[in-house]
Amino acid sequence: MIARIVVVPKPVVNDPQGVTVRQGLASLGFGEVTDVRVGKYIEVRLDATSEREARERVDAMCSRLLANHVIEDYHFELEHERKGAMR
Amino acid sequence: MIARIVVVPKPVVNDPQGVTVRQGLASLGFGEVTDVRVGKYIEVRLDATSEREARERVDAMCSRLLANHVIEDYHFELEHERKGAMR
Repeated sequence: MIARIVVVPKPVVNDPQGVTVRQGLASLGFGEVTDVRVGKYIEVRLDATSEREARERVDAMCSRLLANHVIEDYHFELEHERKGAMR
Repeated sequence: MIARIVVVPKPVVNDPQGVTVRQGLASLGFGEVTDVRVGKYIEVRLDATSEREARERVDAMCSRLLANHVIEDYHFELEHERKGAMR
């Protein structure tokens, strides 16, 4: 199973990285950009017997390590790997 | 228009951040995790008159600033903002 996790700063939290990227884009001529938020993307490959189990485990991983829930939100989607697929 | 951009290290490129996260997860009891890749998630809000124009502009932003195409891949999806929606 593959979990594709996105962790973003909460809307009320300052995002200096996003501000810097917006300024960089503006100075490159992308003046149409009005806002940028920068977060993390984490792809986790895990063994799980069911989607429900995988969902619970990934949720626990996010709470305990991957996201700081004081300042960040997260969401993820799961994808079944094809058996015997090339990696 | 909102562009949701994901930038990930290419499969052949080492990802020390991913290795560190996998080790961290293993030491927290998530031994079922077999692989982790860490990338960036960038949400860009921009003014564009058409989806085609937005796609071209965001593609240019990725090539010129957001992704290093020697070591990273990127992909993105576009979403229309509802007129008058609260931000």
